[in-house]
Amino acid sequence: MNIKLVLKLVGRVLVMETAALTVPLAVALLYRESPAPFLLSIAIVAAVGLVLSTLPAKTQFFTREGFVAVGLIWIFTGVVGALPFLFSGYFATPMDAIFESCSGFTTTGSTILTDIEALPKGILFWRAFTHWMGGMGVLVLATAIVPKLGIRSHYLTQAETPGPVFSKLVPKQSQTSKILYTMYFALTALEVLCLKLAGMPLYDALIHSFSTAGTGGFSNRNASVGAYDSVAVDVIITIFMLLFSINFAVYFLILTKKWREAFQSDELRFFLAIVAGATAVLTLANLSVYSSVGDSLRYTAFQVASIISTTGFGTADFVLWPQFSQLIIVLIMFCGACAGSTGGGMKCSRVLLLLRAIRREVHRITHPRCVEVVKLDGKLVNEATLHSLLVFLGAYVSTVFFAALVISLDGFSFSVSFSAALTCVSNVGPGLEAIGPSGNFAAFSGLSKGVMSLCMIVGRLEIFPILVLFSPSTWRKS
Amino acid sequence: MNIKLVLKLVGRVLVMETAALTVPLAVALLYRESPAPFLLSIAIVAAVGLVLSTLPAKTQFFTREGFVAVGLIWIFTGVVGALPFLFSGYFATPMDAIFESCSGFTTTGSTILTDIEALPKGILFWRAFTHWMGGMGVLVLATAIVPKLGIRSHYLTQAETPGPVFSKLVPKQSQTSKILYTMYFALTALEVLCLKLAGMPLYDALIHSFSTAGTGGFSNRNASVGAYDSVAVDVIITIFMLLFSINFAVYFLILTKKWREAFQSDELRFFLAIVAGATAVLTLANLSVYSSVGDSLRYTAFQVASIISTTGFGTADFVLWPQFSQLIIVLIMFCGACAGSTGGGMKCSRVLLLLRAIRREVHRITHPRCVEVVKLDGKLVNEATLHSLLVFLGAYVSTVFFAALVISLDGFSFSVSFSAALTCVSNVGPGLEAIGPSGNFAAFSGLSKGVMSLCMIVGRLEIFPILVLFSPSTWRKS
Repeated sequence: MNIKLVLKLVGRVLVMETAALTVPLAVALLYRESPAPFLLSIAIVAAVGLVLSTLPAKTQFFTREGFVAVGLIWIFTGVVGALPFLFSGYFATPMDAIFESCSGFTTTGSTILTDIEALPKGILFWRAFTHWMGGMGVLVLATAIVPKLGIRSHYLTQAETPGPVFSKLVPKQSQTSKILYTMYFALTALEVLCLKLAGMPLYDALIHSFSTAGTGGFSNRNASVGAYDSVAVDVIITIFMLLFSINFAVYFLILTKKWREAFQSDELRFFLAIVAGATAVLTLANLSVYSSVGDSLRYTAFQVASIISTTGFGTADFVLWPQFSQLIIVLIMFCGACAGSTGGGMKCSRVLLLLRAIRREVHRITHPRCVEVVKLDGKLVNEATLHSLLVFLGAYVSTVFFAALVISLDGFSFSVSFSAALTCVSNVGPGLEAIGPSGNFAAFSGLSKGVMSLCMIVGRLEIFPILVLFSPSTWRKS
Repeated sequence: MNIKLVLKLVGRVLVMETAALTVPLAVALLYRESPAPFLLSIAIVAAVGLVLSTLPAKTQFFTREGFVAVGLIWIFTGVVGALPFLFSGYFATPMDAIFESCSGFTTTGSTILTDIEALPKGILFWRAFTHWMGGMGVLVLATAIVPKLGIRSHYLTQAETPGPVFSKLVPKQSQTSKILYTMYFALTALEVLCLKLAGMPLYDALIHSFSTAGTGGFSNRNASVGAYDSVAVDVIITIFMLLFSINFAVYFLILTKKWREAFQSDELRFFLAIVAGATAVLTLANLSVYSSVGDSLRYTAFQVASIISTTGFGTADFVLWPQFSQLIIVLIMFCGACAGSTGGGMKCSRVLLLLRAIRREVHRITHPRCVEVVKLDGKLVNEATLHSLLVFLGAYVSTVFFAALVISLDGFSFSVSFSAALTCVSNVGPGLEAIGPSGNFAAFSGLSKGVMSLCMIVGRLEIFPILVLFSPSTWRKS
């Protein structure tokens, strides 16, 4: 294990983060708030970052190092991102600040805050800004630096890229990154514009656009998006939440006018089918809660988009919906967004491939002489890929239950412990009962908050980088 | 699809069931209770059975027919087994009677009865007797008849056998069956003897031995095994529940003095480690509920054995335990017993292989040049077997959540809907909250009871036979 090089990489990313911290600093100054939390944080992060990034290291770099670097960078980022929160004095304990920061960078959006509106504008801006940066991955951002170290950056993105079918858009990784940033930036700017036109103040529009882009869910209002009580805002955010949960490769195909390829994506169709199906079924199921079909559709569509995109904004409290509706919410929490998007969860493509693998298993029994393959987008899915995918799903479900076990030590009901673990691993935000859209995560113990913070990173990195980081075989000399 | 032959097989099994029905009839007569429910049932079952078994059919029989036959036989058995319950007048609706019968034959042990002790002795005997028959599988029982039809019985047991590593004990299937019955019968008799010596009345000893042998859980007492409040009874039943959840192949190895092979079973070690670990951790966790370590150990060990063996007897209400303890109960419900036993769940060997597959995935990342295989009992596990196993686990978890979705229409909490689905698919018995060890399943709707009854069969047959039965491709002409 070339740990020095890994730490050097961590250092480089931390130095970049000092630059990121100047943005909320500017916001704080603009609103004449104390700049101290940010100045202190910048000093500490810069010092640690510079020391680490000047470590002398060989450039030997293998997959193993890549996975460990990704894991460590996210853990470090989560911890140092907590500094402004801690210095602001609005967070009771360091663990609370770390929870909020991890929730931000991993684009989860769960909060331990009970009164969001009491916080300074600079701190709330940083909170949403971590979503925006986390969205495309602090790591994918860092790929601009990695090549300078003479490292094949492919190793890093192997651990980072969500889902099994993230198409390489262009041959060179650095070019891919630039195209992705551009699309990400453009879509965010478009949302800010739309929200501004719908009457939202610019500050609020920025906060909500950052949170939508990263499929995070932090709002600057206690009642989340529901605070605006505007149909236009609801519709705009619903659409953008869905847009940000679609594989960005689809947009690239559209931009290069490969319309047919773009809309032939099995995952996209599956995703849209779930969104449409869940919205239709829940609109009917929730008629007992809402006075009209129109109202039911409005609130249901928003919440479905919010959960499947793993954003977690709220305009209604689904904890008050019928139990059937809540179970569908749990199911789409598992499922999550499309691969290659900023969303979390197991990813639609994986769920689709699992269903196809089950169907093949049935066909094998009924037609033992036929050789059947599993396909995606008309292309054969390699058996090794399918194997890794099935192992991933097993590891995913195991992680959720194991985390729920630790959280249950706090004595909350099974629904709370289980949904807390699920919402963190899937990077969604709200859970069931006390941690629903109107609730928060303040009541959990420090241990639980620590486990949940780690779960957010585990989910965001799709489990294996953190397993590699904690596996003894990684650190053994070979 | 040779449906005529399949129905003919169903008919043969039904004819056998009339013989089984004479046992509770004798009990009813002995206790001077009305024999009418059993006489009526025998008449109906015999008529249907004879008509079906005399169907003219070709002897063409493929895997597909085997799977469909297994699925249909269990569904038919569940329905006709409900007749005595229905005719007894103690069950409010036919669906209630079917639920109880499916719960019996699949050795689940969930009940819709609110006052068990109010029922006649003959009916309660039939209830426990269905466990005993279900235990080794009405189908494995039927293998004595199948060969006479000129069918290679291997196809039937392929669908039936629990777990991926059920060793063929002897070359001939019919011989294997005989050895298995003998061991099953001997162990049951031994338990009856032990319980009798511990002071239990013979009738109660038979009921509880039948339920233990099938890992079912029906008792003739409202307070289940807790009603006897005897340490000796608790210890005896704890031990026998564990004995019946071990792969019967291990006993055959012991009988043939292959001690080393017997105790080198990875699954057995894993199973015993879970039992010991869960008992130790829960004994400590439950100290807040019990006055002494001895008491805590006594009740914890019984409940752990009861849940992991998927029996479901109770001497304590784990719903009153700390939430952490309840989550461990949920985890071992998923896990279940060893393959090749009468227990349910995903099976220890599958969970162990999933963990090994995850470990291999991590090793592949850290040591990409090593070729690593997954082993069980020192032998290489075929990649195709591993693939089927992973697909099975995915199908298992999907089934639980899909069933929970339908059950949630009744409006019970997430904990209740989820644990109801899990306990039925895993053939355990009790769930969380209102359906805990002191509760019952009476409050559910007819739809939920129907879905749960099907789930019990789906779980008992390890999912695929029922998927094959309902798959359109099975019924398409090829």
